[in-house]
Amino acid sequence: MMTIQDIKTLLENYFKPVELIGAGDTVITGPAKIEEAGAGQVSFVANEKYYRFLDEARASLLIVHTDAPTGDTAGDRSFIKVRDPYTAFVFVLEKFAANRQLAAPGIASSANVAPSAKLGSNVTVGVNSVIGERCVIGDDTVIGPNVVLMHDVTVGSACRIYPQVTCYDGTVIGDRVIIHSGTVIGADGFGFAPQPDGSYIKIPQMGIVEIEDDVEIGANSTIDRATMGKTLICKGAKIDNLVQIAHNCQIGSDTVIASQAGISGSVKIGRQCLIGGQAGFAGHLEVADRTSVAAKAGISKSITQPGLAIRGVPAQPMRDQLRQEALVRGLGAMKEKLEELEAQLKTLRGE
Amino acid sequence: MMTIQDIKTLLENYFKPVELIGAGDTVITGPAKIEEAGAGQVSFVANEKYYRFLDEARASLLIVHTDAPTGDTAGDRSFIKVRDPYTAFVFVLEKFAANRQLAAPGIASSANVAPSAKLGSNVTVGVNSVIGERCVIGDDTVIGPNVVLMHDVTVGSACRIYPQVTCYDGTVIGDRVIIHSGTVIGADGFGFAPQPDGSYIKIPQMGIVEIEDDVEIGANSTIDRATMGKTLICKGAKIDNLVQIAHNCQIGSDTVIASQAGISGSVKIGRQCLIGGQAGFAGHLEVADRTSVAAKAGISKSITQPGLAIRGVPAQPMRDQLRQEALVRGLGAMKEKLEELEAQLKTLRGE
Amino acid sequence: MMTIQDIKTLLENYFKPVELIGAGDTVITGPAKIEEAGAGQVSFVANEKYYRFLDEARASLLIVHTDAPTGDTAGDRSFIKVRDPYTAFVFVLEKFAANRQLAAPGIASSANVAPSAKLGSNVTVGVNSVIGERCVIGDDTVIGPNVVLMHDVTVGSACRIYPQVTCYDGTVIGDRVIIHSGTVIGADGFGFAPQPDGSYIKIPQMGIVEIEDDVEIGANSTIDRATMGKTLICKGAKIDNLVQIAHNCQIGSDTVIASQAGISGSVKIGRQCLIGGQAGFAGHLEVADRTSVAAKAGISKSITQPGLAIRGVPAQPMRDQLRQEALVRGLGAMKEKLEELEAQLKTLRGE
Repeated sequence: MMTIQDIKTLLENYFKPVELIGAGDTVITGPAKIEEAGAGQVSFVANEKYYRFLDEARASLLIVHTDAPTGDTAGDRSFIKVRDPYTAFVFVLEKFAANRQLAAPGIASSANVAPSAKLGSNVTVGVNSVIGERCVIGDDTVIGPNVVLMHDVTVGSACRIYPQVTCYDGTVIGDRVIIHSGTVIGADGFGFAPQPDGSYIKIPQMGIVEIEDDVEIGANSTIDRATMGKTLICKGAKIDNLVQIAHNCQIGSDTVIASQAGISGSVKIGRQCLIGGQAGFAGHLEVADRTSVAAKAGISKSITQPGLAIRGVPAQPMRDQLRQEALVRGLGAMKEKLEELEAQLKTLRGE
Repeated sequence: MMTIQDIKTLLENYFKPVELIGAGDTVITGPAKIEEAGAGQVSFVANEKYYRFLDEARASLLIVHTDAPTGDTAGDRSFIKVRDPYTAFVFVLEKFAANRQLAAPGIASSANVAPSAKLGSNVTVGVNSVIGERCVIGDDTVIGPNVVLMHDVTVGSACRIYPQVTCYDGTVIGDRVIIHSGTVIGADGFGFAPQPDGSYIKIPQMGIVEIEDDVEIGANSTIDRATMGKTLICKGAKIDNLVQIAHNCQIGSDTVIASQAGISGSVKIGRQCLIGGQAGFAGHLEVADRTSVAAKAGISKSITQPGLAIRGVPAQPMRDQLRQEALVRGLGAMKEKLEELEAQLKTLRGE
Repeated sequence: MMTIQDIKTLLENYFKPVELIGAGDTVITGPAKIEEAGAGQVSFVANEKYYRFLDEARASLLIVHTDAPTGDTAGDRSFIKVRDPYTAFVFVLEKFAANRQLAAPGIASSANVAPSAKLGSNVTVGVNSVIGERCVIGDDTVIGPNVVLMHDVTVGSACRIYPQVTCYDGTVIGDRVIIHSGTVIGADGFGFAPQPDGSYIKIPQMGIVEIEDDVEIGANSTIDRATMGKTLICKGAKIDNLVQIAHNCQIGSDTVIASQAGISGSVKIGRQCLIGGQAGFAGHLEVADRTSVAAKAGISKSITQPGLAIRGVPAQPMRDQLRQEALVRGLGAMKEKLEELEAQLKTLRGE
């Protein structure tokens, strides 16, 4: 059971100052969306756009920005003011989040753990999961049911691997990595040598995938192993569902890739980039740090300038692309003007 | 064994009138595509475009529209005339469809059903499937092999859950729902709070996915749970393979979403919409009922007018988009005319 | 242990002539990328663009083209010259490729093989895999852990089916086929008959998927069964990750389909085509042999001329599309010129 005062105390671990306006003894039973929150619930307002909710909201507690115009009294509600109310609310959510149990603690009797595998302390392996020869799993890692780690896979500590994930042989995973269901790590890169008769010879895919600490990967994504060397997902990257990352790619730290984006082979994406949904990258490109790629963009050239926003197919700087889109929308008017000038010219020339 | 007369009798359960032209005693051994059907087979012609097949087809039975120009005699073939020959053919297909067995009836001995799970009567759970704590499964539901239902999942009656499906904790599924292999329901929404150092804190995803009655979902699709509240797939919606539906979306009843479409977070799509393949929606949009979205469209604004057809990136009404595409195709001619006018003007100005 | 001379001998099985320049007795410990290769390693240069590496590379052995300007001596390195150094390098890679073990040899005790299934000699079935009634599996085929073959599936010889693959009932697979994890073969085609009230009736999907010899399919792809008849993937086709192939498609032999491409129902693609990533095809099209489709293209019409390169949405011949893209990029200049002409005309007309 958590009171408003308890929440204030919690947030003081992360922010300074944390200001409470109103009563602190109300019991908070859970969080809710601002438009649905009622008595006993906590919500937040992070954006000036939603300041009308400072009056309208029925939540017992609103977490708001230090500068929010709350007044000094809160009626039957309370306000907590912090520098970053969004993140503060996340810390509160964590306290209320249901304890999701991926699998019963310990090694399920139906799990198939190879004798040569080495498991740390407090490891969970779910029902019917397969841990191959020479795998190494760090402390406190939880592996759900029906997961397959082929041989020689290394998983760090405090990871969460959801049901039906597959990691091919040699995959290396850091600490606190989360991989959602159905994702396939380390399948063969898509490489074939064309032959004179039009057929192809498969190029052996000898590399691996390495995933650094604090990466989260969504459901049903695919990250292919390198042909030689490694496909590398750097620390803190966040990858959504149904994303394709081809062989030999490198995804920079804290880069975010939205659903259904596709990164072709040997692309190197910098740090703290934002990649929109359904965006696609041609092979062998380099993308500078903090690049922001719009949804559905098609990137066909390397981006060398950091911090650029790009958009379109083929992608160009946001400003150029938006101007181009406006010009295309204006084509009808342009055509009319052209015909008008043509008519005027005819008159002038006495035709 | 089914005769033409039996098929007529079957269809009379659904249509009135059902007219038979020709003999009724021929045995029909199965259905076939119109161009491949031969003696003993049944096919259909629903579209005037294919009326040439009324003469050409070798099928023993053709199901056609009431108004089809068949004449009064059918030679060695027969015709059945109904208001909706396409749907009539579907009812016939159902009679001939092989009895697909998802799993041997009953609870497989290798299935892992939690003691607290409650199963209705006549439930099948396939080999190696995992039914978590407090799951509830309705009568006559069939769960294939290697399925994982995490804890607190509710599945209605007469559902079919194919192999390798994963439902995360808290998922609620109605009656007669079909979910194909590899699909992941209820993985975490893609939500992270950015921090000053460029890294992200994961936002706990506390909501669920609810899927109403009569929904069908294809293979390897992903439907994420809500951050708070629920992601909702309404009654009768049909979702193809490799579709992404993000956290907090609502998909209206009888809406159809083709393969590889992607719906960003908190999008609300109306009833009876048709969403083309590889279409993408920006977050937080509302789309009116009966909207028709072309394949590959990129929807960046809400659609408020029901029944609109839209297309393009960014999407606009079909008519405007087609006109714009025509203008772009005419750009070469426009440029030539512009240069011609320029030359004429030069002459006029005596340059 | 392999010396340079051993590699020369290996390549003489495939190429004639194979010329060695430099010493043959150095032991080669493995392959490496040209920019990373060092002493004891082998790499290759196939492309004139990389001829600078003939001097720079530190690899002990470089496989190069017969015509590469290597000079007659190689210092502390050696050169092997062949007609196709890329393919030659692939043969060398095969020798060094780690022996990936998909599953321990034999039938795992936890595998669930139906009594009516027929397995050839030297078949491997991994842990927790399910082989349905009347399945037939050819000699030397390896099926990884947690695979599900529903009933009546036929798999040829020397296939490799990776973990978590699902094949629906009736699927037919040839010899030497590779299917990566999470891929779903034979799920129901996406077909529904619209009803007057806006709802849909499911059309029974009675056909199958047939996959011919030497096909490779990536991870998390989906190939739907035909409504009637079969969806056919012809000999030697290569399909990447997250690709959608709908019901009744036919993919020609040696055609290559990159990641996240989507092929709608009843599309027939010819032989030796190259389909770029995220490309999409409308239904019922025919695409001629050796068509090259750019990434992200949207194909809305059949392609009848073989060997054409196409690009854009809607796709058109590469040359036309590139010209159109250039015209669109030039729209700003066109608009300026139009306004200039307008001003000149005004002056001329004395306004």
